[in-house]
Amino acid sequence: MILHAGLHRVLRGVRRWRGEGAGQPIPVDPELPASDWRHLATEIEATVENKGGPVAARRRAGKIGVTYESLTPGGRLRFFQKLAEDFGHEDQQVNRAMDAVFAASTREARRSAEDELRRRLRARREVLLRRLAGLDDGLPFLIGMRSELLPHRRRSPELTALDGEMRQILEEWFDVGFLNLERLTWDTPASFLEKLIEYEAVHAIESWDDLKRRLGPGRRCYAFLHPGMPDDPLIFVEVALTKDIARSLEPLLAAPTDPDHAAHAERDSDTAIFYSISNCHDGLAGVSLGDFLIKSVVEELAAEMPGLKTFATLSPMPGFRSWLVARADGDGALLTPEETAALGDGGAGIAEELDGLIAGPPRPPDDPLLSRVEPVLLRLAATYLLETGPSGRAVDPVAHFHLTNGARVEYVNWMANPSPVGWDRGLGLMVNYRYDLRTIETNHDRYISDGRIAAADAVRKLAEPPKADGGRIRRS
Amino acid sequence: MILHAGLHRVLRGVRRWRGEGAGQPIPVDPELPASDWRHLATEIEATVENKGGPVAARRRAGKIGVTYESLTPGGRLRFFQKLAEDFGHEDQQVNRAMDAVFAASTREARRSAEDELRRRLRARREVLLRRLAGLDDGLPFLIGMRSELLPHRRRSPELTALDGEMRQILEEWFDVGFLNLERLTWDTPASFLEKLIEYEAVHAIESWDDLKRRLGPGRRCYAFLHPGMPDDPLIFVEVALTKDIARSLEPLLAAPTDPDHAAHAERDSDTAIFYSISNCHDGLAGVSLGDFLIKSVVEELAAEMPGLKTFATLSPMPGFRSWLVARADGDGALLTPEETAALGDGGAGIAEELDGLIAGPPRPPDDPLLSRVEPVLLRLAATYLLETGPSGRAVDPVAHFHLTNGARVEYVNWMANPSPVGWDRGLGLMVNYRYDLRTIETNHDRYISDGRIAAADAVRKLAEPPKADGGRIRRS
Amino acid sequence: MILHAGLHRVLRGVRRWRGEGAGQPIPVDPELPASDWRHLATEIEATVENKGGPVAARRRAGKIGVTYESLTPGGRLRFFQKLAEDFGHEDQQVNRAMDAVFAASTREARRSAEDELRRRLRARREVLLRRLAGLDDGLPFLIGMRSELLPHRRRSPELTALDGEMRQILEEWFDVGFLNLERLTWDTPASFLEKLIEYEAVHAIESWDDLKRRLGPGRRCYAFLHPGMPDDPLIFVEVALTKDIARSLEPLLAAPTDPDHAAHAERDSDTAIFYSISNCHDGLAGVSLGDFLIKSVVEELAAEMPGLKTFATLSPMPGFRSWLVARADGDGALLTPEETAALGDGGAGIAEELDGLIAGPPRPPDDPLLSRVEPVLLRLAATYLLETGPSGRAVDPVAHFHLTNGARVEYVNWMANPSPVGWDRGLGLMVNYRYDLRTIETNHDRYISDGRIAAADAVRKLAEPPKADGGRIRRS
Amino acid sequence: MILHAGLHRVLRGVRRWRGEGAGQPIPVDPELPASDWRHLATEIEATVENKGGPVAARRRAGKIGVTYESLTPGGRLRFFQKLAEDFGHEDQQVNRAMDAVFAASTREARRSAEDELRRRLRARREVLLRRLAGLDDGLPFLIGMRSELLPHRRRSPELTALDGEMRQILEEWFDVGFLNLERLTWDTPASFLEKLIEYEAVHAIESWDDLKRRLGPGRRCYAFLHPGMPDDPLIFVEVALTKDIARSLEPLLAAPTDPDHAAHAERDSDTAIFYSISNCHDGLAGVSLGDFLIKSVVEELAAEMPGLKTFATLSPMPGFRSWLVARADGDGALLTPEETAALGDGGAGIAEELDGLIAGPPRPPDDPLLSRVEPVLLRLAATYLLETGPSGRAVDPVAHFHLTNGARVEYVNWMANPSPVGWDRGLGLMVNYRYDLRTIETNHDRYISDGRIAAADAVRKLAEPPKADGGRIRRS
Repeated sequence: MILHAGLHRVLRGVRRWRGEGAGQPIPVDPELPASDWRHLATEIEATVENKGGPVAARRRAGKIGVTYESLTPGGRLRFFQKLAEDFGHEDQQVNRAMDAVFAASTREARRSAEDELRRRLRARREVLLRRLAGLDDGLPFLIGMRSELLPHRRRSPELTALDGEMRQILEEWFDVGFLNLERLTWDTPASFLEKLIEYEAVHAIESWDDLKRRLGPGRRCYAFLHPGMPDDPLIFVEVALTKDIARSLEPLLAAPTDPDHAAHAERDSDTAIFYSISNCHDGLAGVSLGDFLIKSVVEELAAEMPGLKTFATLSPMPGFRSWLVARADGDGALLTPEETAALGDGGAGIAEELDGLIAGPPRPPDDPLLSRVEPVLLRLAATYLLETGPSGRAVDPVAHFHLTNGARVEYVNWMANPSPVGWDRGLGLMVNYRYDLRTIETNHDRYISDGRIAAADAVRKLAEPPKADGGRIRRS
Repeated sequence: MILHAGLHRVLRGVRRWRGEGAGQPIPVDPELPASDWRHLATEIEATVENKGGPVAARRRAGKIGVTYESLTPGGRLRFFQKLAEDFGHEDQQVNRAMDAVFAASTREARRSAEDELRRRLRARREVLLRRLAGLDDGLPFLIGMRSELLPHRRRSPELTALDGEMRQILEEWFDVGFLNLERLTWDTPASFLEKLIEYEAVHAIESWDDLKRRLGPGRRCYAFLHPGMPDDPLIFVEVALTKDIARSLEPLLAAPTDPDHAAHAERDSDTAIFYSISNCHDGLAGVSLGDFLIKSVVEELAAEMPGLKTFATLSPMPGFRSWLVARADGDGALLTPEETAALGDGGAGIAEELDGLIAGPPRPPDDPLLSRVEPVLLRLAATYLLETGPSGRAVDPVAHFHLTNGARVEYVNWMANPSPVGWDRGLGLMVNYRYDLRTIETNHDRYISDGRIAAADAVRKLAEPPKADGGRIRRS
Repeated sequence: MILHAGLHRVLRGVRRWRGEGAGQPIPVDPELPASDWRHLATEIEATVENKGGPVAARRRAGKIGVTYESLTPGGRLRFFQKLAEDFGHEDQQVNRAMDAVFAASTREARRSAEDELRRRLRARREVLLRRLAGLDDGLPFLIGMRSELLPHRRRSPELTALDGEMRQILEEWFDVGFLNLERLTWDTPASFLEKLIEYEAVHAIESWDDLKRRLGPGRRCYAFLHPGMPDDPLIFVEVALTKDIARSLEPLLAAPTDPDHAAHAERDSDTAIFYSISNCHDGLAGVSLGDFLIKSVVEELAAEMPGLKTFATLSPMPGFRSWLVARADGDGALLTPEETAALGDGGAGIAEELDGLIAGPPRPPDDPLLSRVEPVLLRLAATYLLETGPSGRAVDPVAHFHLTNGARVEYVNWMANPSPVGWDRGLGLMVNYRYDLRTIETNHDRYISDGRIAAADAVRKLAEPPKADGGRIRRS
Repeated sequence: MILHAGLHRVLRGVRRWRGEGAGQPIPVDPELPASDWRHLATEIEATVENKGGPVAARRRAGKIGVTYESLTPGGRLRFFQKLAEDFGHEDQQVNRAMDAVFAASTREARRSAEDELRRRLRARREVLLRRLAGLDDGLPFLIGMRSELLPHRRRSPELTALDGEMRQILEEWFDVGFLNLERLTWDTPASFLEKLIEYEAVHAIESWDDLKRRLGPGRRCYAFLHPGMPDDPLIFVEVALTKDIARSLEPLLAAPTDPDHAAHAERDSDTAIFYSISNCHDGLAGVSLGDFLIKSVVEELAAEMPGLKTFATLSPMPGFRSWLVARADGDGALLTPEETAALGDGGAGIAEELDGLIAGPPRPPDDPLLSRVEPVLLRLAATYLLETGPSGRAVDPVAHFHLTNGARVEYVNWMANPSPVGWDRGLGLMVNYRYDLRTIETNHDRYISDGRIAAADAVRKLAEPPKADGGRIRRS
């Protein structure tokens, strides 16, 4: 592909709207009292009506944008509310358009009436939102705007609708067809890498040394970028290349004792472990990116390193603790009678200890209680992972994400992350979800249509209540 | 801005769908008989229903794409027809959804019912079209597809709707917010410049020397590019930097006698003449690009060269001849009585000669008839340019374009392009439309809302029928 | 490697010396009379003596550079002569330094005296030449300067020495370690490709279509570039990918009837034919580049296309005609008695015809004389190619180049280039020199040390005088 | 300038010599005993004699390079010694060549004999060194090699000569004409910025936050890069933009309390302070870079920010303490009688305290002794800075560097860097050297030719011994 170096990218003055040389905000009180809203409404109206032509409309959108930025949080909420109320569609016009559809006597007439109906159903503010998105840096602006709207979107049906329109526009602009998959390395600009530190949501990056390690031998980091936001990742995933599926977190994050060894190990690896995946922008909530990122990276790695045979995650179970607590509160029956018996301790004692454990602070991995209840917690974890709610969705949100992608539950791992964070996200247990390209689509379809969860036999067995066998828990 | 050199753009395997290593087409007869359509329909159905998850759906879209490419023109038309008929929306579902809107008793219920109605009004094939657009090189694919649909779009309301959906998707993806304005120079890759030769629609580029001249001193060329089609311009404009508004074409296209002189002249220029603007892709018909391109270039040039004070076009009048012919056929009254008298020649003689002139082959610029009828043709040209049709649109399409942009009619130029092409596009006359940033928005609004055409006083005067004054045409 | 995009290349003001904002030339008459030389000499003296520090010296060099550019050809010659005479070394100082070396009694003293002698042997003008080379665009400046000196370099030992110093500096700066091997394609900037048309010295590029073909499927073009002259190739080679060694030129230059076929043929090719190699700058005469270019391209192609087994040239024999003429003039014995007999024509007739042929204008390939004398001319060509002069160098300059590189004479081809140019460079015959990586070094060493020419057995046989065999020339 | 994106930089296989796919080292013992040297010597001989042609010679150089890298430090020293002894020039040949020069009777003959003499004076190993430099990554290799030779270069005249030849080659390759001045920012690749942390020799970079600050608002960082080492700076300078000349270090290094304020301050700045300049490679010792760097940055900043009027350094006085100690040891007379009197303390007391101070550990800035001796130390510092040694060089090395560049001593600053490092490099005192483009060349010339040091009048006054005035030190 040509990297048009001989083309001279020119200043995009038409779209400049912020900073030096750009327009001034509309003079409104930052709290946006009703009286000031009117000034803003006039400009919005002109934008929506395309007054002065599209270039003028775009410049006016910029003016509205900087005005929005001059508002306080309270002013911004009022802005959302007024925009939602005053720039929707007109019910009467919709009604008339529906009447016309019903009245149409020919196919042509009906199609034409439907076109009109579609137009009438469209909120007028959409024109403004699209103009804002089309400004230079309009995408990050709209993402930021939506992240500020999100906490309030349930306040009224109009705010919900406004949020839905924003999401719709962002979905169109952030279609995966626009995104570039980029590998991030230690050669990436520092200003960009800094953002990984900021955005990493799963396993915090402790320092630049830690970051360098995660980009070094035996590790990979990939991100989706949008050409309209080239300095900011949308989502990124961190990968470790290992021998066999990694079943505990510590070796993935620890500093390698020997970089030569790390390079050597990379050559011998047969497995890629996705140990962290972070969405970078709240404002993109509901815009699906993770599925494509994981599969793009799987394809990329498979092409680059033919030795890689297995692709899997090492994931937390963020809902496990609250599920246990709810279950314990509900009927107290965390333990089967057989387990209670096997644990020997007689009745309430062990059940109480277990209750304390699941609700309490992190325990050290060598806490004797832990080894006693290991079989019980493993059974409960497997049960939890295989459980679906009334809508057919897996109860664990991370499980739901990977199952929707077509992965299967492969292993449940004891004390895979005994850190406080790990305790919080699943009592130290972690799960491997495996991405097997041959079964990914079938898994997806079964899960989506029937709520059937793909899981390894061992996990299914793990979930079975143990049979009593002379006071000991026996597993086949 | 960072040019993420340290980021490693990876192979985008997930989206690869054509050529080596990609999927095979669905085995159908290239004429796409009804029996074979069913195989295709099954895949389209699965795509629309998102079977196997979005990655699978995208891959399936690629399969459908290569299948489309394997069809003959007849097969492709059948593909459009079946897609239009079988994958639209369901009237009954729309009816039910409209009933629900009417029945809604609360605002919440109504909003929710409207949401459902919007969904039901959406054609099912839209999912496929969006998946196709999101493929690698999906945008040029969709543009090509639409250019093949365009000649047939009037055949049925369904085909019209299909075309409308394609245009809608292309409008979203080719929003000017995504486009990059690039200056093309002689340093641009040859493979790219070659496309200018191919696409130039106004004044054919004769040779590489001619092209080099149009990119050299005293000349500029700008294009809009889309990041998803970096090797292909969408629209480009050619500009000449001159002293005063250029009122004839020849000096703009001729080889400069002296390149040093050309560089010198560039420094002294005060005017930018847009002498050619070419849309590059039929499939983008109806997607507005030209307005933004001209204004972006005006802003860019104004910033780069503060000496530039005037921005104008030198444009043809493509509808002038047929307008004259229609008018002559209608009532024969091309000439006013005063003009007939002034031309001396008595009655039908001159009128007949004029009829022959407007319908006939190009005349040499020194044809005596031409100088005789110059005042008449100038008056008619001005009249033509200021005329609007019943919808309030200027009758000349080029005039309509520039007037919509807010330009005004500045000069009508006699024998500005006496070449055969120039004869065809306006009997050798050409027009300057002037872009004056101070009046552009007012002009736009007046034209759009009231059909009022902005024009220089001299042009208005030119359009006035002359007063008889002792046998000579007198103009004030 | 990092493409330091995040690094901001800054204006290199310190080195700006030409054009706007740079210094003015020293005011001298363009013919550079002796009186004006003194002004220039003062500045050169200051430069050589590093007056004001190195930054000042460099700026002063720039001043001298623009002054040089203001001179006429006659003025420039005088500049060279005065520079050569007045800024060499001092014989007396060299004598004293040599005395000191002879007088040194210890190794330390001798080494130190030798250091002084080296310094004294260095021409003072070298400092100026190096300062000029170190200016921005100083390398093309020095190359241009030397190309203007070259025609005069034999005029005096001082001018010869000056030329030698320039060559020495250019050799250092154009060391192959600095050069980048680049593949040129149709995606290369037009302004760069234009230079190929200008520089092609072997088979003129007829048009941009011709050029596109030479960069298209089945063809390759590689150049050496220097980072200090990124817009200008130093030397380039054109390659055709073929099935077997190409033994005639026409198929290599002809337009392919079918581009698909060309792409297909490329995949099946087993041979790379170097059919044109052009040095781009006279001023680099004597700076060895071709050897590295050919071998770099061989390695590059071998790595990229493992199917390529054979690497060879298709080369002219530029000295063949004059060698034949000289031989004919010398003793008339172009034909052996056996050949004369075999050609039947009795005595002087055929010899005279042959004389006419070699000295005369191009003959059409189907001239009957040509087929009669084919065996004779092939024998003479082989003889010519295997002949070395008194210094042990091959008499043909192209042969000398390839033999020095370690290639061997593989085939002599009849009517391989019957065009007028081909006639001029070897009566239409051409040679394949083969680069076999396994024997390249041995061939080189034998040729350099002993003047032994590597050639295929068939070529050696071809050079043997034929034995008479009943009136027919018989070849084994 | 074109950034040849359409050119495809190809693998430079011909030069690959290290790592996978490259040649194996010559099998020698890493200690390089005499017996093994012979194997190496054979290869060096073949390289020097260009056996097999230049491509072969280059490959052989690569082999020698990897062999060198396989040696222990002891082995490398032996390599240097043998290379220095066995591959120099031949004294007898030099003698004969000198005889020939003396014997030459014509100018032509003499010039030709001198050419031969030059050749004979050239060490044979130079061919090897140049071949090594011309390898891929040959420049960093040679720099590394020289840095390992440097500690031993005084051991023998041959090693000194070898070092001189290396320096000569490096001087040619690192001519400032080849270097690119780059601005480093926070957008620079992390792998590159990491090197700044490593190389900063003056004021250690404490952390990535510290580094980010030094690249942020109100700060600049520039480096010279060589195209052959694009990932590694050669020398870099850190600049602070200030209001007036900064006379103490702390504000330059401290974290700004408010980044907005920093950006604001940058706009108001009128002075650029060069507060740190670091050479990055020992192996480039003696290759002058700093002069050009400072002046290039001055020109660059002056062009970018017309508000900047003053350019100065804030520099240590690294030789001050040892100069004081030597002076105190010499005659004890750090204090003039007047000063002793003025300090009141009677006789040896204060002198002894002062001796303790200059030889002892860092004192806190509020140590009462410091304020007592401030006038004395300032006088001594000024005296020190204005002192030249027998060769006419300033005794302080940093002063010598800036004076050679044409700067002048502007201010001596009390307690400008009270940190332990600052104490070590001048008892906490620092100097501003000012670069005034109008006087830079005169200053240079006076310093170089006459040892005259440019200094502000105030500094000269400061250096004058005070006059006694009723027990107080009085300064005019």
